[in-house]
Amino acid sequence: MPSGEDDLIARYFKPLATDPGALGLVDDAAVLAASGDDLVLTTDAIVEGVHYLPGDPPEAIARKVLRVNLSDLAAKGATPAGFLLTLALRNADESFLAPFAQALGEDAAQFGCPLLGGDTVSTPGPMMISVTAFGRVPPGRMVRRNTLRAGDRIVVSGTIGDAALGLDLLQGAAATVSDEHRAFLIDRYRVPQPRLALAYAVRDHAGAAMDISDGLAGDLAKMCAASGVTAILDATAVPLSAAARAMIADSPATLARVLGGGDDYELLCGVAAGKLDEFLAATQQTHVKVSVIGTAAAGTAPPRWLDAECRDISLSALSYSHF
Amino acid sequence: MPSGEDDLIARYFKPLATDPGALGLVDDAAVLAASGDDLVLTTDAIVEGVHYLPGDPPEAIARKVLRVNLSDLAAKGATPAGFLLTLALRNADESFLAPFAQALGEDAAQFGCPLLGGDTVSTPGPMMISVTAFGRVPPGRMVRRNTLRAGDRIVVSGTIGDAALGLDLLQGAAATVSDEHRAFLIDRYRVPQPRLALAYAVRDHAGAAMDISDGLAGDLAKMCAASGVTAILDATAVPLSAAARAMIADSPATLARVLGGGDDYELLCGVAAGKLDEFLAATQQTHVKVSVIGTAAAGTAPPRWLDAECRDISLSALSYSHF
Repeated sequence: MPSGEDDLIARYFKPLATDPGALGLVDDAAVLAASGDDLVLTTDAIVEGVHYLPGDPPEAIARKVLRVNLSDLAAKGATPAGFLLTLALRNADESFLAPFAQALGEDAAQFGCPLLGGDTVSTPGPMMISVTAFGRVPPGRMVRRNTLRAGDRIVVSGTIGDAALGLDLLQGAAATVSDEHRAFLIDRYRVPQPRLALAYAVRDHAGAAMDISDGLAGDLAKMCAASGVTAILDATAVPLSAAARAMIADSPATLARVLGGGDDYELLCGVAAGKLDEFLAATQQTHVKVSVIGTAAAGTAPPRWLDAECRDISLSALSYSHF
Repeated sequence: MPSGEDDLIARYFKPLATDPGALGLVDDAAVLAASGDDLVLTTDAIVEGVHYLPGDPPEAIARKVLRVNLSDLAAKGATPAGFLLTLALRNADESFLAPFAQALGEDAAQFGCPLLGGDTVSTPGPMMISVTAFGRVPPGRMVRRNTLRAGDRIVVSGTIGDAALGLDLLQGAAATVSDEHRAFLIDRYRVPQPRLALAYAVRDHAGAAMDISDGLAGDLAKMCAASGVTAILDATAVPLSAAARAMIADSPATLARVLGGGDDYELLCGVAAGKLDEFLAATQQTHVKVSVIGTAAAGTAPPRWLDAECRDISLSALSYSHF
């Protein structure tokens, strides 16, 4: 006697539930088998019109909501174990659900993070999608954000600011940008690259880590505040894509957007100076570039960002807050 | 540099994050320490206007969203380990959040299920609240819903149908009912009682179990279908509160609502005939009443409900579906 809700789950999501712990999605619960590891828990929700645009492709929405959680696991040094999916839908729209589930399944397979279960409810309002992801680390080895120490080198992965610039372009910002750069930046906004390849390097060699979701400058300030330290950053060392470099060359004020804008989903790590070589060596096996951008220091003042002439850069709008 | 979102979390939810694994809610993730147990995962979301009424007290909403998840853990034979909370809010309304967080914290303490983390996002639409709860069971011992066997006795906890009748009264149903019964039924709708006291009895002696959230008749049919069996039920054996009995006496058609209506959050178990005495003995230490209401049987026909004269009862609207 399958109901509409059960039908929807069976048709679109059961194919994703490849782990035995998902119990074929027919139970009220899922199970993660005992292991010797600690379990890292992270959850992120996205709301239509707030975190993604109504016209965004369903495939991109699926990949983004899973990947932002995988990005958190990577920052904690964890390897993925599975995820739960909660969907609040106005209706069972096949033209959305079919590509959404297809892409979600592809990402789940690619990143080794199977669907374990979830909940599907109706809403009269905007669609909301929530993912809770689970990762494993050896006991006591989860890397925290509030353990940055004075003297630690500050390292980021990938390139910074691409997603914020991509969002600006999607929202109609006037900018001189090539078609190739435009497509690259929009893709960086829509489809984050979770840096799971760096998880072992982070776990084994970083003293503190978080992923950059609300902008590099704001998230670094949060890490410093939580750790009771400050930091001095070399803005010229912040890794930039060719597209971001071109836009900054065209309009230097774009740099503040690059450092302050959200949705990077790169990793921000503190690495003790004596461990930096080991950390860099471990990352070199991964094809993900990492860049040293500054040093943590004693004190509780806001982090200082210095330009090429060692002058302080003033950054307004450091971080995005929902309220 | 606390933002509005961080302020909100610090003020209302940090006091609930009593477990060291919550890391004071300042990290991107929480951690559940390694144990020898399997981890049971369950998640339920509620939407304003769909799962609760805009006028419902914030305390009742908080208790309900946590308790429906604890009910799932109880049905799986698990003991609570903690939960994640996702809130989608139109604004940071203190008159809602203060009593909501207070009641949630009281329930978390009462049921030994601390807040571990979560996410808070803004929405232009109805409020949505999602809880993901974690429980522990010894390896391989989670009780499933698709393992009902022909010959198993079918047992339910508590009394059935109260919540559905309470919802009807809240929605203005015309019924002759005393003030005392009205208050009792509405409270049963608003504040489920998770049967965690029965978790050990279920884990050690039941062959199959689920909690009753979408109505006894519908959920039993789901359990039978998932298990590839049918069942014969004695409707006169279904445990009823004095309030429900009075309403059925006044209007016999109310029985279908009792058997088909949702929100019971009682446990539905299959217990092998040879284990029934042990199961009942284990439950007698808990002060939660359980009642044998029928027997599973070979076959795939829908379950049969028999009245006092052993005539089949026809039940329309067996289960609530969101789509």
